[in-house]
Amino acid sequence: MQVYLAGPDVFLPDPVAIAAAKKAICQTYGLVGRFPLDTSLDGTTLTPVEFGLAIYRSNIALMNACDLIIANMTPFRGPSMDVGTAFEMGYMAAQGKPVFGYSNDGRLYVDRVPAVAPEKDADGLTIEAFQLHDNLMLEGAIITSQGHFTCADRPADRYYTDLTVFEAIVQLAAAQLTHRTQP
Amino acid sequence: MQVYLAGPDVFLPDPVAIAAAKKAICQTYGLVGRFPLDTSLDGTTLTPVEFGLAIYRSNIALMNACDLIIANMTPFRGPSMDVGTAFEMGYMAAQGKPVFGYSNDGRLYVDRVPAVAPEKDADGLTIEAFQLHDNLMLEGAIITSQGHFTCADRPADRYYTDLTVFEAIVQLAAAQLTHRTQP
Repeated sequence: MQVYLAGPDVFLPDPVAIAAAKKAICQTYGLVGRFPLDTSLDGTTLTPVEFGLAIYRSNIALMNACDLIIANMTPFRGPSMDVGTAFEMGYMAAQGKPVFGYSNDGRLYVDRVPAVAPEKDADGLTIEAFQLHDNLMLEGAIITSQGHFTCADRPADRYYTDLTVFEAIVQLAAAQLTHRTQP
Repeated sequence: MQVYLAGPDVFLPDPVAIAAAKKAICQTYGLVGRFPLDTSLDGTTLTPVEFGLAIYRSNIALMNACDLIIANMTPFRGPSMDVGTAFEMGYMAAQGKPVFGYSNDGRLYVDRVPAVAPEKDADGLTIEAFQLHDNLMLEGAIITSQGHFTCADRPADRYYTDLTVFEAIVQLAAAQLTHRTQP
């Protein structure tokens, strides 16, 4: 059972280290973790856009080869999760694969967007208030695909690197996929 | 040819008005625009989470019925686009449908994220620098699906409502899908 490990982890100063740590946790629970950077690409002869497209194609091929996705949905550069990871959750959901997600931020979405009026942001746009942790498409995909979402507030200095909640969701995913025919 | 009109437009104070305006533009170019709020759902007897899931299922059904997606990728509550829309681009890309996108912000992603060092944000995380307008998965899907992306800086007070760039991408989509067998 191969897991696509999606998240802004690829932008960390040492993505190879976090990839190795996540794969080790997956292995503990009988899953094979696959990380977007697993495929080594040589971008030296490519333009920046060509290199970006090569990475895109590599990630798509990796997703096609995986059985499920575990997405790091920790808020990234704003109140919401990383958009690349959101894209990948949609891609896997469309293939009918289980979508799992976790966040190192325990708050609901409505509690992360500064409101200037009831359910309105500073631009006058509505703040979703469905008691969910991000845009409804994301947790919607998780719930309807028999996946799970889990979150907890982790220390600020380990907001992007702490793997406690990640390990909890890997354990849930392993249990779910081993016993998926049970009630 | 039915177009799924994705974007944070659903959060505008008057989403029905923007939906009508977008559909009218689609009709001008021979396309049928479908908007996430087209299906009227009664949430009065549902919990917030149940209502969120009902909207999720409704949007999924609408995407399954559409032939292509035109995504409003204007930055939303941060340097990146709306995550729900990103999810929907991934969902449509996985179905092999053409992905089109537009933005009312003409800047590249690297120019929208405040850098504290070369290609590093305040948390020390890498800022993507592929000469693209957002995370590479998004424009990657557009380019590889024979779609198009277009953007321009629109006035700040119409950042979320201006439809000039939207009309340009509808025109491109209509031309592309009418002549897709030509070189």
